[in-house]
Amino acid sequence: MAAPSRLLIRGGRVVNDDLSQVADVLVEDGAVRAIGRDLLPPGAAPAGLRVLDAAGKLVLPGGIDTHTHMQFPFMGSRSVDDFHQGTKVPAPPRPPLRSAPPPTPLPPPPVKEEMKILAQDKGVNSFKMFMAYKDLYMVRDEELYAAFSQCKEIGAIAQVHAENGDLIAEGAKKMLALGITGPEGHELCRPEAVEAEATLRAITIASAVNCPLYIVHVMSKSAAKVIADARRDGQVVYGEPIAASLGTDGTHYWHREWHHAAHHVMGPPLRPDPSTPHFLMNLLANGDLTTTGTDHCTFNTCQKALGKDDFTKIPNGVNGVEDRMSVIWEKGVHSGKMDENRFVAVTSTNAAKVFNLYPRKGRIAVGSDADIVIWDPKATRTISAKTHHQAVNFNIFEGMVCHGVPLVTISRGKVVYEAGVFSVSAGDGKFIPRKPFAEYVYKRIKQRDQTCTPTPVEREPYKGEVVTVKSTETKKTP
Amino acid sequence: MAAPSRLLIRGGRVVNDDLSQVADVLVEDGAVRAIGRDLLPPGAAPAGLRVLDAAGKLVLPGGIDTHTHMQFPFMGSRSVDDFHQGTKVPAPPRPPLRSAPPPTPLPPPPVKEEMKILAQDKGVNSFKMFMAYKDLYMVRDEELYAAFSQCKEIGAIAQVHAENGDLIAEGAKKMLALGITGPEGHELCRPEAVEAEATLRAITIASAVNCPLYIVHVMSKSAAKVIADARRDGQVVYGEPIAASLGTDGTHYWHREWHHAAHHVMGPPLRPDPSTPHFLMNLLANGDLTTTGTDHCTFNTCQKALGKDDFTKIPNGVNGVEDRMSVIWEKGVHSGKMDENRFVAVTSTNAAKVFNLYPRKGRIAVGSDADIVIWDPKATRTISAKTHHQAVNFNIFEGMVCHGVPLVTISRGKVVYEAGVFSVSAGDGKFIPRKPFAEYVYKRIKQRDQTCTPTPVEREPYKGEVVTVKSTETKKTP
Amino acid sequence: MAAPSRLLIRGGRVVNDDLSQVADVLVEDGAVRAIGRDLLPPGAAPAGLRVLDAAGKLVLPGGIDTHTHMQFPFMGSRSVDDFHQGTKVPAPPRPPLRSAPPPTPLPPPPVKEEMKILAQDKGVNSFKMFMAYKDLYMVRDEELYAAFSQCKEIGAIAQVHAENGDLIAEGAKKMLALGITGPEGHELCRPEAVEAEATLRAITIASAVNCPLYIVHVMSKSAAKVIADARRDGQVVYGEPIAASLGTDGTHYWHREWHHAAHHVMGPPLRPDPSTPHFLMNLLANGDLTTTGTDHCTFNTCQKALGKDDFTKIPNGVNGVEDRMSVIWEKGVHSGKMDENRFVAVTSTNAAKVFNLYPRKGRIAVGSDADIVIWDPKATRTISAKTHHQAVNFNIFEGMVCHGVPLVTISRGKVVYEAGVFSVSAGDGKFIPRKPFAEYVYKRIKQRDQTCTPTPVEREPYKGEVVTVKSTETKKTP
Amino acid sequence: MAAPSRLLIRGGRVVNDDLSQVADVLVEDGAVRAIGRDLLPPGAAPAGLRVLDAAGKLVLPGGIDTHTHMQFPFMGSRSVDDFHQGTKVPAPPRPPLRSAPPPTPLPPPPVKEEMKILAQDKGVNSFKMFMAYKDLYMVRDEELYAAFSQCKEIGAIAQVHAENGDLIAEGAKKMLALGITGPEGHELCRPEAVEAEATLRAITIASAVNCPLYIVHVMSKSAAKVIADARRDGQVVYGEPIAASLGTDGTHYWHREWHHAAHHVMGPPLRPDPSTPHFLMNLLANGDLTTTGTDHCTFNTCQKALGKDDFTKIPNGVNGVEDRMSVIWEKGVHSGKMDENRFVAVTSTNAAKVFNLYPRKGRIAVGSDADIVIWDPKATRTISAKTHHQAVNFNIFEGMVCHGVPLVTISRGKVVYEAGVFSVSAGDGKFIPRKPFAEYVYKRIKQRDQTCTPTPVEREPYKGEVVTVKSTETKKTP
Repeated sequence: MAAPSRLLIRGGRVVNDDLSQVADVLVEDGAVRAIGRDLLPPGAAPAGLRVLDAAGKLVLPGGIDTHTHMQFPFMGSRSVDDFHQGTKVPAPPRPPLRSAPPPTPLPPPPVKEEMKILAQDKGVNSFKMFMAYKDLYMVRDEELYAAFSQCKEIGAIAQVHAENGDLIAEGAKKMLALGITGPEGHELCRPEAVEAEATLRAITIASAVNCPLYIVHVMSKSAAKVIADARRDGQVVYGEPIAASLGTDGTHYWHREWHHAAHHVMGPPLRPDPSTPHFLMNLLANGDLTTTGTDHCTFNTCQKALGKDDFTKIPNGVNGVEDRMSVIWEKGVHSGKMDENRFVAVTSTNAAKVFNLYPRKGRIAVGSDADIVIWDPKATRTISAKTHHQAVNFNIFEGMVCHGVPLVTISRGKVVYEAGVFSVSAGDGKFIPRKPFAEYVYKRIKQRDQTCTPTPVEREPYKGEVVTVKSTETKKTP
Repeated sequence: MAAPSRLLIRGGRVVNDDLSQVADVLVEDGAVRAIGRDLLPPGAAPAGLRVLDAAGKLVLPGGIDTHTHMQFPFMGSRSVDDFHQGTKVPAPPRPPLRSAPPPTPLPPPPVKEEMKILAQDKGVNSFKMFMAYKDLYMVRDEELYAAFSQCKEIGAIAQVHAENGDLIAEGAKKMLALGITGPEGHELCRPEAVEAEATLRAITIASAVNCPLYIVHVMSKSAAKVIADARRDGQVVYGEPIAASLGTDGTHYWHREWHHAAHHVMGPPLRPDPSTPHFLMNLLANGDLTTTGTDHCTFNTCQKALGKDDFTKIPNGVNGVEDRMSVIWEKGVHSGKMDENRFVAVTSTNAAKVFNLYPRKGRIAVGSDADIVIWDPKATRTISAKTHHQAVNFNIFEGMVCHGVPLVTISRGKVVYEAGVFSVSAGDGKFIPRKPFAEYVYKRIKQRDQTCTPTPVEREPYKGEVVTVKSTETKKTP
Repeated sequence: MAAPSRLLIRGGRVVNDDLSQVADVLVEDGAVRAIGRDLLPPGAAPAGLRVLDAAGKLVLPGGIDTHTHMQFPFMGSRSVDDFHQGTKVPAPPRPPLRSAPPPTPLPPPPVKEEMKILAQDKGVNSFKMFMAYKDLYMVRDEELYAAFSQCKEIGAIAQVHAENGDLIAEGAKKMLALGITGPEGHELCRPEAVEAEATLRAITIASAVNCPLYIVHVMSKSAAKVIADARRDGQVVYGEPIAASLGTDGTHYWHREWHHAAHHVMGPPLRPDPSTPHFLMNLLANGDLTTTGTDHCTFNTCQKALGKDDFTKIPNGVNGVEDRMSVIWEKGVHSGKMDENRFVAVTSTNAAKVFNLYPRKGRIAVGSDADIVIWDPKATRTISAKTHHQAVNFNIFEGMVCHGVPLVTISRGKVVYEAGVFSVSAGDGKFIPRKPFAEYVYKRIKQRDQTCTPTPVEREPYKGEVVTVKSTETKKTP
Repeated sequence: MAAPSRLLIRGGRVVNDDLSQVADVLVEDGAVRAIGRDLLPPGAAPAGLRVLDAAGKLVLPGGIDTHTHMQFPFMGSRSVDDFHQGTKVPAPPRPPLRSAPPPTPLPPPPVKEEMKILAQDKGVNSFKMFMAYKDLYMVRDEELYAAFSQCKEIGAIAQVHAENGDLIAEGAKKMLALGITGPEGHELCRPEAVEAEATLRAITIASAVNCPLYIVHVMSKSAAKVIADARRDGQVVYGEPIAASLGTDGTHYWHREWHHAAHHVMGPPLRPDPSTPHFLMNLLANGDLTTTGTDHCTFNTCQKALGKDDFTKIPNGVNGVEDRMSVIWEKGVHSGKMDENRFVAVTSTNAAKVFNLYPRKGRIAVGSDADIVIWDPKATRTISAKTHHQAVNFNIFEGMVCHGVPLVTISRGKVVYEAGVFSVSAGDGKFIPRKPFAEYVYKRIKQRDQTCTPTPVEREPYKGEVVTVKSTETKKTP
C-alpha cells in the first residue's frame, strides 16, 4: 500500500522544548506544513490525507539517540542489533548520528586530513576520542590536545569516552590477582573516580584549546558534578547521560546470577551507588547535562559468556535504544523532575542543536522534518526482553513499569510504527550530513577567540646582564 | 668559644601544637631534658648553664621547611643559595628534608631497586615525581602508578609536582606564537586548571594504589579545593602550600618592570586571583592543608635574565626559606585565621609527623631534639632584600611588615642565631635518616589493605554456551 | 502623524532564544504576522507599509525588565523615575511586571483573600515577600510558610528579597557604634553571608511547601551558588541577577567621594569581591540563573543625602532599566560568556515564561506581540548620566563602553524609539494581566504533588502498654 | 576493699592524639605520675602498687561523651538512664559535661545575668540554644543573636540544636493530615534540609557576632557539609556527630515493627540515606567534624508508646553512651577511615580542648587525671540490649559486631570496671568546673576582634543639599 502523501495529526498537544499547545499538525512530503487549530474544516478528509486522532495525547518531536553502536565489531564479537533491527524503535525514529569511531590513532597528519574531509565534505561534525581501552583506542593527552585542536579548526565538536585507561588496565590486573573474575570486577577495576578524573582532564585540555567538548555516557555522580562545575566556570561542555545510567544502577554487578550481572557490563560501568540515577536526572532536568543517548551495544548471553571466567573478556554493552524515551519519561517526567518540554529538549532538541540539525530536527515547526511521535502520557507498559523488538535476549530494564507509551511514530512523514506494528524496510534510514561550526556550540567559541586572547604586557626591554652560573660559587649581586 | 653544654630557657610561653603553657625549658646535650615551672632555684645559675630569658616571649619548636632547592642546578643555571647560606635562617634551623630529586625516569627496575635501598638503608622515606617539565622530568600516568606502587611497597610517601606537562608545553608554544614573551606568559601558559587537573589525577592514581600522597607547592584555590575534597572523601593526601602562595600573588607577572615580574617566576606559578593567599591560609588553618614549605630556589636577576626574551627560559624559583615563619605568622596568626598552636603544627609538627621525625622533631618535649625558637609575637620587622641573609638579590615579600620576630634560634641545643648574629659553620647541618612506614600516614593505609580489599561474589559457575559471532547475521537467542 | 499600521523589518538576523536566522518580519496591528525570506516582492512598498532596513543588524524580542520601582515611595523619599520617564528606554519596551509590593503583613486571612483575588481576577501571578527591612516589611519564617502556601494554592510564583533582616538590624547598630556612618557601613552590616543564609532559608521553606520560588536581585556569589546548588537538587527555584550585580561591584562603597559611594547603595548591596559579576554572568550563561532585572529605583544626590551622616538613612536604590540590555550584552555576549540566543533568553524569553506571558512576549513568532528591538551588535556607546534618558543625576555604569546599541524599538507594533528620538506619551504603557499556574513553573510542581507525596507504612497497630514515668525511679523493662 | 593507692599499667601501647608508644603508666592519687619504659624494676611489685598488664593492648585516655541527657524529663516522660546507671559504661568514665539545658527564653536580662554567673562562678562554659521545639525551647534569630553575644562576652562556647522549628511544626501537621502517624512521619516532617538550613543560619549569626559555635548532634550529610564549608571559610565552628548518626541510619523509621521504628526516634532524626554514616565518619576522620557525643536519652518501649498513634508524641531519644567508643572504633578505626590517634582525638582530646579541660582530661600525660581505658583492639563483642548495662530495653546498635573491647576502665586513678564487673557507687562522679575563654576556641576569636574590626573610610563631609521629595513631581538635578 502506498502511504498517503499527507497526514493530519489532529487535536493533540504539540510539545516543543519551549511550549506545549493543542494544535493540529499537517504533514506533507515528509515535512511539517502547518500547525494550528482546526486546520481541517469539518467533514470528510480529502483524498490522500490521512487523519490521525491525537486528542488527549502528546505530539512530540522524534527522539534523537545520540549514541548507539549497531552491528559493531567489538571485543571479539559483534553487537547483535544491526541498523535495521536496532532502530525498530517505537519512539525515536532517527538514524544514528554516528556509529563506532575508527580506532585510529589521531594526531598523524593523515588522520587530521581525514577529519577535515569528513567535516567539510562528508557531513560529519563530531569526533569521538577514547581515553580508555589502553593499547587499543586510548589516546594520550598530547594526542587529545592535537585532536581537539583539529576539531576546533574544522568546526567539529570533540567527544570523549572519559575514563583513565591506564588505571583500568592496572585495576583489572589487580582484581584478577585477587581472584575476582566475575562481573563485579568490571566495576571494581574502574570505580567512578577513574571516570571523574578523565572527565576533568578532557575538560581542561578542551579549555586550553577553546574547543567545545561533549562527554559521552556520563555514568557517575562525580563525573556529572565535574561537568556541571565546569559549566558554572563557563566551559563549553556538554554531558550525555544514557538510558542505562538514568534508569538502573551498578548493584546488578553483584547479582548472584552470572548472566544477569554480565548483561550489565558496559564501559564506563553502571555505579553501585543507588542514588546515581536520581542525581543524573536532576542534573539533566536542571540543564547541567544536555542530551541523552544509550550507547546501545547489545550482546546475547552466549556472547557475554566469552568472559565467563574473566570479566575483562565480557563484551561491553547494554541495550537502551528502544526504551530510552520510556525510561526518561518515567524517571524524569512522571517523577516530577522535569516537565514534558524539558523531556523534548533532552531527548531531541538539544541533540539537534549540538549536532547542527536544528530546527530541521528536534522541533515540530513549519518546515521541519516530520519526525513525530504520538505519545500517551497516561498509559503504561512494562519493559521486558520477552516483548521488546530488539534482537538481544536480555533487557537491563526488565520489569520496569513505565508511564508514557508511544502510539504512533512518523519518520519523515511516513507512519513507521502504529498499534504495535512496524512498517519499515532495511535501508529506509537516511544519513543526514551535518555542517561544521554548529552555531549552538561555536558562537561562544569564536567570540572568545576574539575577545579573550591575551596580549603582551608593554615593557621596556630588560637590558641587564645575563649570567649562567656554572659553579656553586655564587655571590650576592648588588 | 665552647658553647655551654646546658641551656635554660626561662619563663617563656612554650607553644606546642596542642597547648601553650608558661614554663622553663632545660636543654642538655642537644635535647630537651626538662620542662616545668621554676626549674632553676633562685640564685646564680650553675656553671655551664646558660640562661636565656624568654619572659613575655613564645618558645616554639624549630620550623621545618618541607621543600627547598639549595645550590640546585636547574634550567641552565644553579640556585644561588647553597646549603650554608640558604639555611642561615633565624627561625627554622633544620636541615632540608630533601633536596632536588634526581631526574630519573621512575619505573625501570633499577630505579625501583634504588628507591628500596634509599628507603631501607639510607633514611629517605619520600620520593617526588614530576607531572610537569615534559621531556625532562615528566612521568606519564603508568609511570606514576608504578612509582606510587613502589612507594607503597617500601613505606615511603609519594610526592608530586602536580601540573599537566603536556598542556604547559602546548601553552608555552601558544603564548610565544601570540608574541607574549614576558613573564606573564609563564602564568598564561599554565593557568590554575592545569594544576588542579594534575592534582586530581595524582590523587586518583594514588587512591587506586592505596598509597599516601603529598602534593608539593599548592599554588591555587582550585588545586587546594581538589585536595580538600579528596580528604573529605577519605583519601590519605596532604597538601603543602608555600610561603610564596600564602604571602603574595601572581599579579606581579604583569608588573611593568621585567625583573620584578621575572623574580616571581616559579612553577606552578603564583595566581593572579588576589584572594588566593587568604583561601589557602584558611584551608591551612582548618586542616585541609597540612604542612608548609617554600620551594626555595633562588636566582639572581642576571640569572633570571636568561629568559629576558623568552619566559620559558627564565630559571624557575623564588625565595622563601628565611621569611616563611614570619609570613605565615603575619598572614595566618596575626590575621586571626589560626592560633599559635596551629602555627606550630603547620610550620613544624605536621612535617615531623608526615616524614616520621616526630616527636624527636616538631615538639618541645622531654627527650626531643632541642630545636627551638624564641619568638617575639609583638615585635615587627620589614622584609627586604637589602637586609635579608640570603644570597639572592631580590625578595618577593619586599616591604611586607611582619609581626612575629625570631629572637634566638637553637639548633640541637646550640644557639645558632641571637641578636641578629649567626653562629654557624658550613657543615653544621646534620642529615637525619627517616624510617619508612611513618605511622602518621601509614596506619590507615595498612588497615585499608586489610579491611577494604574486595572479595569475589560467590556464584554458581556459568555453564552456558559461548558464541563468538563472526558475521552480522544474528538471531534472537531464546 | 499617524503611525503606519504595518511595518516590515527587512533583512535582519532574527534572534530567538533557540535560533537565529536571517528573515523579514512583517508587523500588523501590533503583532507579528509573518516571518520569512523576501516577504516583500521587489519594488516599492505598498502604501501603509513602512519598511525598516535591518540588514547586518539583529532583530531581538523586546527586553523584559523583571524588577523595577518607578515613582516608589521609600525611606522618606520617592524614586525619581516615574513610569513615563523610567520606561523611556531604547531597548526594553515592556510595561513593568510589577511595581513595589504593599508593605502589608502577609498571613492574616484578609491578605490571603486579597492575594487570591489578585491572582484570579487582576492578572497578578507573583508576590514578593521581604526577609529584610525589619519592623517594616520583614516577614518571619512562619509567615513565609503561609505566604508560600497561599501562592501555591492560587498558582502564583513566590518571590523573596532574601536577606536576614535581624542580622542587618544588628549589624547596622554595630557599624554605627564603631563610628562607621558612611556608605561602606551599608555593605559591612549586611555581608554576603546574610544574603546567602536567607536565600537558603527561603528555598528550604519553599521546598517544604512545594511552591515555586523566585529570588529577586541576586547580588553575591554565595547566594547564587545556593540557588545553583538547589537547582541541582531539583528545587523549582529561579534566580534574578540584575544589571548592577552583573555590571559593577561593591568596591565603590569605599570610594572617597561620599556621593559616589552613596549612589551605589541598594539592598542587598553590591559586593566588594570584584569577581562577582563574572561569576554571576557565568551562572546566567549556564542556566543556573534565569532572568535579569534591574531593581531600578533611583534617587538624586540630594535625596541620597538624607543619609549623609548615617548610611542607614540613604534611600536604597540604583539605576539600571535603561542600560540593562547594553550591560548584559557587553559583559555577557561581547565577552564570549553567552551567545545572542542566551542573551534573548535571559533578557526576555525566560521572564515571559516564568510570568506566563510566553509566547505572546519573549519571542518573535507569528502571532506574538510586536515588541522588537533592532540591535547593532558592532556599534558601541558609552554610558553616562550626562546622556542617559533617566531623571536621576547619576549612573552607576558611568563610562562603561558597551558594544551593542539599540537602533529602533518597536512596542506593540509602534516605533517608539528611533535614531535617538522617543515617540511615546505617558499612558502608552499597557498592563497585561497574567494568568496563574504558569506551565513553565507549575507543571513539575503539580506532578510532584501527585507522585511525591508520602504514604504511611503499613503496620500492625502497636498494642503494648503506655507508661508515663513520673518519678526518677526507673526499672529495666524486660 | 580499699583500692591500692597506686597503679602501674605495664607494657601497653599508650595512645594519645598525636602519637602512640609502648610505655608503662604509673598512677598515683588519681593522676598520672610517670610514663616510660620499664618504670618498675624486675621483681615483685611494692606493697600498695597494683600492676595491670597491658601488653598487646592499647592504653587510651578515657572517653568524653559531649552530649547526654540522664534522667531527663522530656515530652511527658523521663529518660530511663539516670546518672548512675547511665554512666556505668566500660569505656568512657567521664562525668557528663552538661545535662539538659533549662528551657528558659534567653535574651531577658536575668538570663544574661545567670549565664554570666554560671560561666564565672559555676564552671559552666557552654550554653545550648534550641532552634527547634517551637513554643517550647525554640528561640528566634534575634534571640540567638543576643545569646551568642552574651556567650562571646562571658567566654562561653555557644551550642545549637540546629533545626528549623517552624518547618517542623508545619511538617508535622502536614504528615498527620496525610494520615501518616507512624515513626516515619518523624523524619518526613523534618528532612535533612531542615537541619542544614538551621545549621547555616546559626553559623551566619555566630559569624556576625564573632562567637565560637558548636553544633550538637550532626545527623545529615548536608548539615555536615555546611559545617565543613564554613570551616573552609574560616568560621570558628565545631560539629558533633553522635554514635547514632555514625553507626546506624534512618531506614529504620520504615521498619514494619512499630516499636523498632519508634526506638530510633530522636531529633534531628537519623537519615534514610544509607551513605550518611560513612560520610560523617570521613569528615570526622578528616577534621571537618571535631568531637563525638551520643545525645543519650533513653526511653523504654512503654514510654515510646505514648506516641503509638501520633509520632509527634513519641519521646525523642536513643541510646549511645555505652556503645559510643565501640561503634566509632568499628566504623572509624577498623574500617580504616581513621587511625587510633584520631580516635582518641574525636572521642576524648578534642572535647577536652573545646570545653577547656585539656590537658587535665583528654591526654595521658604526667599530671593529667588518670582516666584511662585498657582497650583490646582485636577482640570483638556484639552489641545487644540483652547484655548492655543500660536501663533501657532496646539498643539501636543491636547485633553490631564491634572490634575493640574495653578491658579495664580507670576513673581518676580508681579501677571502676574490670573483667565485666563495675565497681562504682552512685555519687562517685565528680563535676569539674570549666573556665571560660578556652584558649582552643577563643584565641582566634580574640585576635579577630583586634585585627578584623572595620574602620571608617576617611572622607570629606558631604555638604550638599538634602531633599525629601514629597510629591511625584521630580526634576533632574544638575
